[in-house]
Amino acid sequence: MFKVPDYQVAGHQAGGGKLGPLVDDSGHFYKPLQSDERGSQELAFYTAFSTDTRIPDHIRKFFPVFHGTKLLEASDGSGLSPHLALEDIVSSRINPCILDAKIGARRWYQQAAEDYLQRCLKKDRETASLELGFRISGLQVHGNKETGVWKPDRTVIQRGSVDETKLTLRKFVSSNPSTDSDIKPDCCFASTVYGGCNGILAQLLVLKSWFEEQTIYHFYSCSVMMVYDKESLQQGKKQGAQIKLVDFAHVIDGKGVIDHNFLGGLCSLIRMISEIVTDPST
Amino acid sequence: MFKVPDYQVAGHQAGGGKLGPLVDDSGHFYKPLQSDERGSQELAFYTAFSTDTRIPDHIRKFFPVFHGTKLLEASDGSGLSPHLALEDIVSSRINPCILDAKIGARRWYQQAAEDYLQRCLKKDRETASLELGFRISGLQVHGNKETGVWKPDRTVIQRGSVDETKLTLRKFVSSNPSTDSDIKPDCCFASTVYGGCNGILAQLLVLKSWFEEQTIYHFYSCSVMMVYDKESLQQGKKQGAQIKLVDFAHVIDGKGVIDHNFLGGLCSLIRMISEIVTDPST
Repeated sequence: MFKVPDYQVAGHQAGGGKLGPLVDDSGHFYKPLQSDERGSQELAFYTAFSTDTRIPDHIRKFFPVFHGTKLLEASDGSGLSPHLALEDIVSSRINPCILDAKIGARRWYQQAAEDYLQRCLKKDRETASLELGFRISGLQVHGNKETGVWKPDRTVIQRGSVDETKLTLRKFVSSNPSTDSDIKPDCCFASTVYGGCNGILAQLLVLKSWFEEQTIYHFYSCSVMMVYDKESLQQGKKQGAQIKLVDFAHVIDGKGVIDHNFLGGLCSLIRMISEIVTDPST
Repeated sequence: MFKVPDYQVAGHQAGGGKLGPLVDDSGHFYKPLQSDERGSQELAFYTAFSTDTRIPDHIRKFFPVFHGTKLLEASDGSGLSPHLALEDIVSSRINPCILDAKIGARRWYQQAAEDYLQRCLKKDRETASLELGFRISGLQVHGNKETGVWKPDRTVIQRGSVDETKLTLRKFVSSNPSTDSDIKPDCCFASTVYGGCNGILAQLLVLKSWFEEQTIYHFYSCSVMMVYDKESLQQGKKQGAQIKLVDFAHVIDGKGVIDHNFLGGLCSLIRMISEIVTDPST
C-alpha cells in the first residue's frame, strides 16, 4: 500500500539512516516529520496555514493540501514514525518532468542559531544562490526515446553558475535535455510550459503579487516545484504545467513586513523564465 | 565659495580625521573621493552610468547628475583632495525634509572580502535590515514653529525595530515629529508627499519596474533619498517630493541577473509607505 515514490528530485531521500517519503495509491504523499525543531516548525506551519482564512483560494492552490499527520512504518522499516500527510503533486502524471528551485538568496534568519547561520553562509558562497536569489535543487526531464530521462546529479546542479542555471531552465522545457554541452536545448515546450495564460510564468506572477502584499509569513529555505508532463500537454488535457510551494521547516512569522528575501528570489526566477519565453532560440 | 552643506542626514561627515562633503552656490555637491577602492568604485560607477545608453531617461532622473571630478581644498583644510562633482539635491529647497533609506537586507556580495563581510554581518544583526530589507540611515524633518527641526540621533534611528521604522516613516510626513512617544504623528503630509500621481510612492513604483527588468548593475549599500519641503507643497509649486538614489561605492556588475537584494528591500519600503498612504490615521 505504501511505497517509495518513483519521482523525487530534491529533499531528504531514504538511505544512510535517513527516512525518505512514501506515497500511497490514494494520491497522498507522506513526508517523515523531522525529529528536531524543523519537524515541529513544518507541522506548525501546515496546521496554521490550512485554517488561515487570510489566504485567498487562488494562492492556497499553490500549496499542497494538508491531510494531518499519520503514524506509518518508516521507509527503512525501523518502526512506526510520524509523517505529514500531504497532497501528492506528481502521482496523477505520466512521466512527470519536475524542477525544484529553492527560493531566496538567504536561507537563515535573524533568530537562527549561529552554527546554522555559518553552515548556510558556507553553502551559500559555494553555490550561486547569492548571485541568483534562488538555486535549482534538482530536476528530472523526460526527453525523447533516445535520450530517456535526464536527471543530472543534484550537487552539480546546485552548484551551477548563473549561466549554467539559465541553461538548466532551458533544458527543463526541451525534448533533448542532456549533460552534453554540444547539444543545444531545443526549448520546444517553452511556450506551452512556461508561456501562455495558465503557464508557469503566469502562475509565478500571481504568486509574486501576493508576496508584494502579504506580511504574514516569511518562507526561508522553501522551494517552488514546477511539474508538467508531455502526455497532458500533447493531448491538450486540462492538467497543464503547475507550480507548488514545498518545504516549510523554516517558515517564520512575518511580523508586518513582506518576505523580501523570497520575493527578490522569485522575481529573479521570473526574469529568467520570461527571457526564455520571449526568446526561446538563444 | 565652497561650504559645508547645511543639510546632511547620512554618510561621512567632516570631523574626526574624515573629510565631509562641500557645496557651492551653483547647485553642485562635492563628495570627497574615498581613498580606498570604495572611491574608485564610485567614480567608475558614475563614469559608466553617465554615458550608459541603456538607461532610460525616466530612470536616469532618479540619479544625481554627474559633473566629473574636481580637486578641492578639503573640508578640514588639509590640502587639495579629489571630489566627485554631483548635482546638489537639496540646495534649491527651503527647509528641506530629508530621509535616507539604505536599501537591501544584505550589504555585502559574493566577491566581498571576508573582513568586510563579517563587519556587515555584525551590523546587519544589530539593526533591523535583515527583517526589513532596508534601514533608515538618517533623517530630518522641519516640524511646526514649536517643534522646530527634528533630527533624531542616527545610531538610534539605524537600530530602530520594525515598528519604530514604520513610526519614523510616519513622522517624516508629519507636522509634529518628535522623539516623544506620547505624541502621535499626524501624517498630515502623507497624501501629498507619499501619495498622488507624482508622489514618492509613484516614483518608487517606477523605480521598482526598472529593477524587475534591469540586469546591468547590482546596487549594494546604496540609498534612496527622499526630499520635500513644505513651502513648495503649500505654494503648489512644481517641485514636489522627490527620490534620488545615492552612494555607489559598492555597485557591481549584474551579470545578467536582476538585483533581487535591492528589489526585495525596495518592495518592503513600498509596502510600508503604501500602508501609510492607505491609512494615515493608524
